[in-house]
Amino acid sequence: MTTSYFSTADRSRWLEMAAGLDPVLAHQVAQPCAVVAFHPDLAAFQGWRVERSDDARAGLERLWRDGDQVDFDFGTHVVGRLRMRWESGPAGLDAPVRLRVLLGEVPLEIAAPREPFHSNMLPRSWLQEETITVDELPASIDLPRRYAFRFVRIEILGLSPRHEIRLAKLEAVAEAATFNEPGPLPDDVAPLLRQIDATAIRTLRNCLQSVFEDGPKRDRRLWLGDLRLQALANGVTLRRFDVVARCLLLFAGLCREDGIVEACIYHRPRPHRSGNVMADYALLFAPTLLDHASMSGESALAAELWPVAARQVELITGALDGSGRLPAGHPYGWTFIDWNPALAREGPFLGLAVYCLRAAARLARLVGDDDRRTAFTTRAEHLSAVVREVWMHDPETFRDPFAGQTSVALTAWMVLGEVVTDVQARACLHRTLADTSAQQPAGPYLMHHLAHALFIAGAPSDALGLIERYWGAMIARGADTFWEIFLPGNELASPYENAQLNSYCHAWSCTPSWLLRAL
Amino acid sequence: MTTSYFSTADRSRWLEMAAGLDPVLAHQVAQPCAVVAFHPDLAAFQGWRVERSDDARAGLERLWRDGDQVDFDFGTHVVGRLRMRWESGPAGLDAPVRLRVLLGEVPLEIAAPREPFHSNMLPRSWLQEETITVDELPASIDLPRRYAFRFVRIEILGLSPRHEIRLAKLEAVAEAATFNEPGPLPDDVAPLLRQIDATAIRTLRNCLQSVFEDGPKRDRRLWLGDLRLQALANGVTLRRFDVVARCLLLFAGLCREDGIVEACIYHRPRPHRSGNVMADYALLFAPTLLDHASMSGESALAAELWPVAARQVELITGALDGSGRLPAGHPYGWTFIDWNPALAREGPFLGLAVYCLRAAARLARLVGDDDRRTAFTTRAEHLSAVVREVWMHDPETFRDPFAGQTSVALTAWMVLGEVVTDVQARACLHRTLADTSAQQPAGPYLMHHLAHALFIAGAPSDALGLIERYWGAMIARGADTFWEIFLPGNELASPYENAQLNSYCHAWSCTPSWLLRAL
Repeated sequence: MTTSYFSTADRSRWLEMAAGLDPVLAHQVAQPCAVVAFHPDLAAFQGWRVERSDDARAGLERLWRDGDQVDFDFGTHVVGRLRMRWESGPAGLDAPVRLRVLLGEVPLEIAAPREPFHSNMLPRSWLQEETITVDELPASIDLPRRYAFRFVRIEILGLSPRHEIRLAKLEAVAEAATFNEPGPLPDDVAPLLRQIDATAIRTLRNCLQSVFEDGPKRDRRLWLGDLRLQALANGVTLRRFDVVARCLLLFAGLCREDGIVEACIYHRPRPHRSGNVMADYALLFAPTLLDHASMSGESALAAELWPVAARQVELITGALDGSGRLPAGHPYGWTFIDWNPALAREGPFLGLAVYCLRAAARLARLVGDDDRRTAFTTRAEHLSAVVREVWMHDPETFRDPFAGQTSVALTAWMVLGEVVTDVQARACLHRTLADTSAQQPAGPYLMHHLAHALFIAGAPSDALGLIERYWGAMIARGADTFWEIFLPGNELASPYENAQLNSYCHAWSCTPSWLLRAL
Repeated sequence: MTTSYFSTADRSRWLEMAAGLDPVLAHQVAQPCAVVAFHPDLAAFQGWRVERSDDARAGLERLWRDGDQVDFDFGTHVVGRLRMRWESGPAGLDAPVRLRVLLGEVPLEIAAPREPFHSNMLPRSWLQEETITVDELPASIDLPRRYAFRFVRIEILGLSPRHEIRLAKLEAVAEAATFNEPGPLPDDVAPLLRQIDATAIRTLRNCLQSVFEDGPKRDRRLWLGDLRLQALANGVTLRRFDVVARCLLLFAGLCREDGIVEACIYHRPRPHRSGNVMADYALLFAPTLLDHASMSGESALAAELWPVAARQVELITGALDGSGRLPAGHPYGWTFIDWNPALAREGPFLGLAVYCLRAAARLARLVGDDDRRTAFTTRAEHLSAVVREVWMHDPETFRDPFAGQTSVALTAWMVLGEVVTDVQARACLHRTLADTSAQQPAGPYLMHHLAHALFIAGAPSDALGLIERYWGAMIARGADTFWEIFLPGNELASPYENAQLNSYCHAWSCTPSWLLRAL
């Protein structure tokens, strides 16, 4: 018989508490605002220019024949259902009608062919489309799933050559845990930053469903690293602390026998594990719980889940060797940090471990666990000393001595781990940012940590500049919500070998709202 | 203001009576009996041989991966719903699953590619298929429509490359107005004819839904010519006279302002006209009503709808000229008779008109309308004399003097119209059947009328021989239900330029049961 670190009673209680916090989703009807056409254009985002060709009404007033196809634009990113009503034309109908509906967050998903499909990693079923056959008209058709989209292509795949039909209604019913608007930004915030903030809030809201999803198109799933960033933005905007609590309870309730929490979990059809553990995500449980307590002003959940947070920190930081590295072959040796495949991850991970130890020490203080407070503080200081001795090339340069590598990830996480003074941190960041040989961030997740580190190091104007340059560049390319992946020089970059599969409303990109409001 | 021949009150009453007779459908669960493979084979029906490759269980016990495809055989023709239950494999599921289901009455519909689609007449939406995307497993999936099929292909179009899924259940829920079994055939009926009878009854049952549909795959619609033949077979087998009455009432209630009944109507989403009139089908309202009264033993409906039957006969036969032809440009000049495009239709139509006049005269007698009885009898005799004078080349040969054509259709309908004696009729039929220059029947609808004529003319062994040869040839080719179109020498013949669109369970082919039991 296996003895599990947390009792079945504890884990069941956490799952029950999570179930009790399942939010009632709110709804808002959205209408298409235009009929558009997509044109190949090397100067446009991902090579496709969108041109308004008519009012949305034009698509509703016309008669459709077999083979017809119309592209609608809903004007902004929507997460929800799609409803249509079709009527027969003046001559009636003598055969079933077959329609295909393609939905896309960005023009590429609609304008570029979906076949032949290419990805060795993800299946084509992530591409949003439905084929519907209707025997009789009039018919009201609610497409069967929830979608994430701005653009909708409707094609008539089969219709009697003697008949025409009419689209009497096309509307979306947007879904989210809340449509409340957050309070305004301070008056002195610049227009571009205000636009970035609004886009970040839309990103957050569209991911805020029954759980904080990483992306409402893909993976539609609760990841711990994403949750932490969403919870930060949520704390200063939509303030749905109940959903944050629900998500933390789900991770806790689904922890493994040894007490480790998984990197992502599924809440449907019933909460269950994914089988993935990532050391960095597991450690981040502690700061997520701490931030929740401090932003919500409620410490009950921190007390309830403190043993889980402490367990992650003990299990993982306890295994670090004298250089602050997890031994080769450690079962939880996989870390994410960033998409960049050339990145040496041990250094940034060590910085993250110190960051999480400090957060855990603060949590220990909050819940009155003096022994662990002392232990975690001591370990954080010890590892900081190891960093300064082993992982610094000079007082202004963090450097991985094993991989022989400098990287933005390494410097940012060492700064966040507060292993050096503010002044030194600022110098390190500036030097790394000027170092063309340093490994660069490959996505918004690490960009957030860099911006955060710049604020922490007392370089807010650098941080704001970064936000304007990086998130602003997405806005300039037409983003209604911020993306999972964005490399300014390679708009078709995709970890999945197919940019149609990328998520274009992705939680971990929503942090400018927190950076602008909290720091 | 238009004055309509029948009052709004009459027509509304007929539609209300029809609504009151809408049958409650019965259901029966059917299981697949095998996994099969289709092989190109010039010796097999339509070029595709079906081979059993395993138990149906094999498809249910296996794990399915992306791109997998399995063909199931339900063992016989089923009209109804399809239900599946899918479960995730041992590793769970991390992405939506997309499935495509193709359904077919015959191997050609599954085995031959559906694209590129070709038909200038009918749309591809008649080809039965569904694409379904499921976000979570386990999932019970009821495909959204009613289908007509024996074979079902399931293809996995999108599934995470790291995962497998399992088909935990696949079953059909057959639908029909009744699953009652008719009484047995006489003991002396030969085995092949018994098999033909059973297949005919299955054909009838699978078309016997909320109305008598022409074909449950296509057109799923109430046609008057088909109804008449179904009602005959129904009268001696399933005996759902209520549904026959309902259908006649629908035709009557939807008649046009001038009182003509349409050739086909739609009963869904609410009863409405199709806009098609065919002179032969309109005339056949009278014999259909007469047969209903005599087979059901109830004359109330005959009395109710007698004015409608009489109106068709008066409107159409009253317009025939001195040679028994409708004048050029007559608004109801279109007749069906048979698919054969080379067939001269005026002669067979004249025979049909006499047949219908005689039936109308009998109906007049039944309802006590002596004036019309006399008028219709007189007109039938007058037209018979015209036929004998104008449309016979010699006492044993009917011949269209205008088109210079002999045809099976002409002789059969003249015999059914009883324009000559039995002995003469028999001689005419034998001569036509031996005449290689005569236009031949192009489908089961006219084959029925030929067989009926052979019985009427006192040549039952010729009639039985025809049934064995023609309907038996469908059985030999694997028919579970009889087909809309069958030319023994051209199995891919299709009036729609695409044999995948043909209906393989078609009402007008179900008459052997009536011919064997009633004649």
